[in-house]
Amino acid sequence: MPTTPTRRLNVHNINQHVVAAEYAVRGELAVKSEEYRAKLAKGDKDLPFDDVVSANIGNPQQLDQKPITFFRQVLSLLENPLLLDHEDVLQNQLGYKSDAVARAKWLLSKVGSVGAYSASAGVPAIKESIANFIERRDGFPADPAHIYLSGGASAGVNTLLHIICKDSTSGILVPTPQYPLYTATLSVLDATCVPYYLDEAAGWGTDLATIKASYEKATSEGTDVRAIVIINPGNPTGASLSEDDIRDVYDFAVEKNLVVMADEVYQTNVFVGKFHSFKGVLRKLQQENPGKYDYVELASLHSISKGMVGECGHRGGYFELVNFDPEVEANIYKFVSITLCAPVIGQCLVELMVNPPKEGEPSYELYRKEYDGIFNGLKERATALHKAFDQMEGVECGGPKGSMYLFPTIKLPPKVAEAAAKEGRTPDEFYCMRMLEATGVCVIPGSGFGQKEGTLHFRTTFLAPGTEWVGRIVKFHQEFMEKYR
Amino acid sequence: MPTTPTRRLNVHNINQHVVAAEYAVRGELAVKSEEYRAKLAKGDKDLPFDDVVSANIGNPQQLDQKPITFFRQVLSLLENPLLLDHEDVLQNQLGYKSDAVARAKWLLSKVGSVGAYSASAGVPAIKESIANFIERRDGFPADPAHIYLSGGASAGVNTLLHIICKDSTSGILVPTPQYPLYTATLSVLDATCVPYYLDEAAGWGTDLATIKASYEKATSEGTDVRAIVIINPGNPTGASLSEDDIRDVYDFAVEKNLVVMADEVYQTNVFVGKFHSFKGVLRKLQQENPGKYDYVELASLHSISKGMVGECGHRGGYFELVNFDPEVEANIYKFVSITLCAPVIGQCLVELMVNPPKEGEPSYELYRKEYDGIFNGLKERATALHKAFDQMEGVECGGPKGSMYLFPTIKLPPKVAEAAAKEGRTPDEFYCMRMLEATGVCVIPGSGFGQKEGTLHFRTTFLAPGTEWVGRIVKFHQEFMEKYR
Repeated sequence: MPTTPTRRLNVHNINQHVVAAEYAVRGELAVKSEEYRAKLAKGDKDLPFDDVVSANIGNPQQLDQKPITFFRQVLSLLENPLLLDHEDVLQNQLGYKSDAVARAKWLLSKVGSVGAYSASAGVPAIKESIANFIERRDGFPADPAHIYLSGGASAGVNTLLHIICKDSTSGILVPTPQYPLYTATLSVLDATCVPYYLDEAAGWGTDLATIKASYEKATSEGTDVRAIVIINPGNPTGASLSEDDIRDVYDFAVEKNLVVMADEVYQTNVFVGKFHSFKGVLRKLQQENPGKYDYVELASLHSISKGMVGECGHRGGYFELVNFDPEVEANIYKFVSITLCAPVIGQCLVELMVNPPKEGEPSYELYRKEYDGIFNGLKERATALHKAFDQMEGVECGGPKGSMYLFPTIKLPPKVAEAAAKEGRTPDEFYCMRMLEATGVCVIPGSGFGQKEGTLHFRTTFLAPGTEWVGRIVKFHQEFMEKYR
Repeated sequence: MPTTPTRRLNVHNINQHVVAAEYAVRGELAVKSEEYRAKLAKGDKDLPFDDVVSANIGNPQQLDQKPITFFRQVLSLLENPLLLDHEDVLQNQLGYKSDAVARAKWLLSKVGSVGAYSASAGVPAIKESIANFIERRDGFPADPAHIYLSGGASAGVNTLLHIICKDSTSGILVPTPQYPLYTATLSVLDATCVPYYLDEAAGWGTDLATIKASYEKATSEGTDVRAIVIINPGNPTGASLSEDDIRDVYDFAVEKNLVVMADEVYQTNVFVGKFHSFKGVLRKLQQENPGKYDYVELASLHSISKGMVGECGHRGGYFELVNFDPEVEANIYKFVSITLCAPVIGQCLVELMVNPPKEGEPSYELYRKEYDGIFNGLKERATALHKAFDQMEGVECGGPKGSMYLFPTIKLPPKVAEAAAKEGRTPDEFYCMRMLEATGVCVIPGSGFGQKEGTLHFRTTFLAPGTEWVGRIVKFHQEFMEKYR
């Protein structure tokens, strides 16, 4: 018992695995950018910019992206089913088409109230819709019994890592650079992150020799490597994997008996080539090579937060399990049960995402127009941003291929490292902090995602509207380079 | 490397802390009840009942409880802000009052789009509304900076236990019987649950001597007891603590330097006496005894899932921290950041719950009527159910005081234990399974919550409409007792 009164908890006696976790996407820069935003909102005129541009996070609707009208019409009816007593008003005065009304009725018949808990793994009818979507996408059937709705893909990743990792010797191969959800969750779990570098020279693709080397090194150090995470299209890199790359990953997974975790939340954000789903490629491999791939366990994740949907705030997503042991799956079910169920309105939005209006249906035309408008807008902005990077001294960046991000390399003068060290920052942190202070544009240093020793990067979304903010970055960069040359 | 192909994961090599966790609320009985429901939906006529009554879970809107109109009107406008272009239609034809429209506009001005991520700890304006609510409720100010929105109270409990528990020696005092979220989460965390029995003879109140004995025993066994959980009003017990009980808990917390975790999600479900918030009592104690209670750390949790709101499916809630070390709080912020933010529409519903229409405002009358109707309905059903238990042989149950549950003691003939053992079940599991099979009513055995050795209970909600299902239980019980006498 303490002799002088004191608090029970301090940073040294709480869970040190949480203390050790790092999550840069919402770290110091993000906090500072929110302070600037609050200052500006209060009418502060001292800052050298008029608005804050949150290019640190893939949060489309915080910026320019409008929600898809059909989706939100259906959700409004789910929230207030009394509106369904006024179909004539909805259709004649408020712009709802008959298919929006019909979909809301159908969902309500399956969900009951969106204010009620659903079954732990999600609403059965929604799981069936997802299975149908997967079948259309891949050309192979999917089983709703192995689909789990989750509160965004983050919750799915959290569930899967909780099950897969037994103790601190359990290792998970994680791409580097990576979305820090993985390292942060592994840190909290006190499991081992086994990073493998992506190949910047090959458009940030997977390089099997590198993966093997990481695996061998971890194994030789006593780590029990259990799974490989692939983020495709890539975050933060924007890479988009070829089918051959995916096949290589499976061969490696079979050879080393690894679970494959495919984070495919950017599957519709592909500008070059086409998206190949891990599930579809697995089924093809199984068809072509009877027996060889039968024991591969795959978990693939998807979300309503990204793509043309961009409904992050609704926290919806799902994961599909392929070939998991039934007893393992029972534990996954139990784990998700403990927090009862994913948000039901988010589950309904997953249903709308995987089953949007079809050609010929009343809401189709507007849906298509909005969807294509968002897609083309993202592509144009990505291209414009990339063009700006091309002009910047010491900045190199591959062309935009997918996801919502560019991840340029920056080469900074040696004086930067000295100045950064004085602040206890890495050079890329120092650069990003100065950029925020000078321009109001918030990006994330590469060190927040992991990068090869001696290289520096930053990640920026290309979601913010217009090109004025890009001009701010160009001007800042020029001045920064002049100052530290 | 395995010589024969096999799956990577099996129940013996995954996370054994998850395998060890138990969560009866969604366990075998719940799964079986859903199977019955599906059978009935398919037109099956072989079952001895026509519908399944899910009395296993506090899920008001799955049963009879209708959502509050004002809340859902506002949410429908947040989901489809285009409706705000038609205020005349909303007000003249669709039953929206001006205050619903105004609230939606205000929330949208603060939230932006409900499809965007909010700040990690929640929308600042919503945190201010919550602080105002706490101040009105307790008569003492609250600071929005220490309020965190969460995806239901479950997510809040998960966050807090993740921070508080350092390793397997960290102990948390948890009431028994308890809501199994606590034991399940502590199991997943591999921390130590230190159960303390509630006093059934005193309406399931806290008994300080019992708490002390549990604390001393755990401490003597090397457990570092760090916090005490109180569920008030009680789940599964329905108890409602007096202010004196709460004061005693604080004295104990000060003496032993414990964090107090107050789970107050049933704070409006109080039928006898009044609800005393842990925050309010702490501030009173601090006022009366300068210095003595200054170092108490309190986390109090609330939710939109229960009470007259009953919006479980929307996954909304918050917790307020009092007197936590800033560095500890920074880690709580980081932890919640990793999963980005609580569902934004759920956050908005929290705002509506804590700031409902006031007397004199256009939506007040209907709101009041709906609110009181739900409250009185719950009270009536609780009383009717309690009356039925009073008539049942070997069943004893205190009068309903709060929450949504009754938790009767059942005394079963010795033959039951024999028959149960043959099925590998405890006698109360056996009893509840037979009840489900005979009546379609799903309740949870006391063993799912913890109960004193040699005693048997079950928990049932009193949410299901009508009294017909209560009659089914009475009839089943009579036949069961005859059979095993």
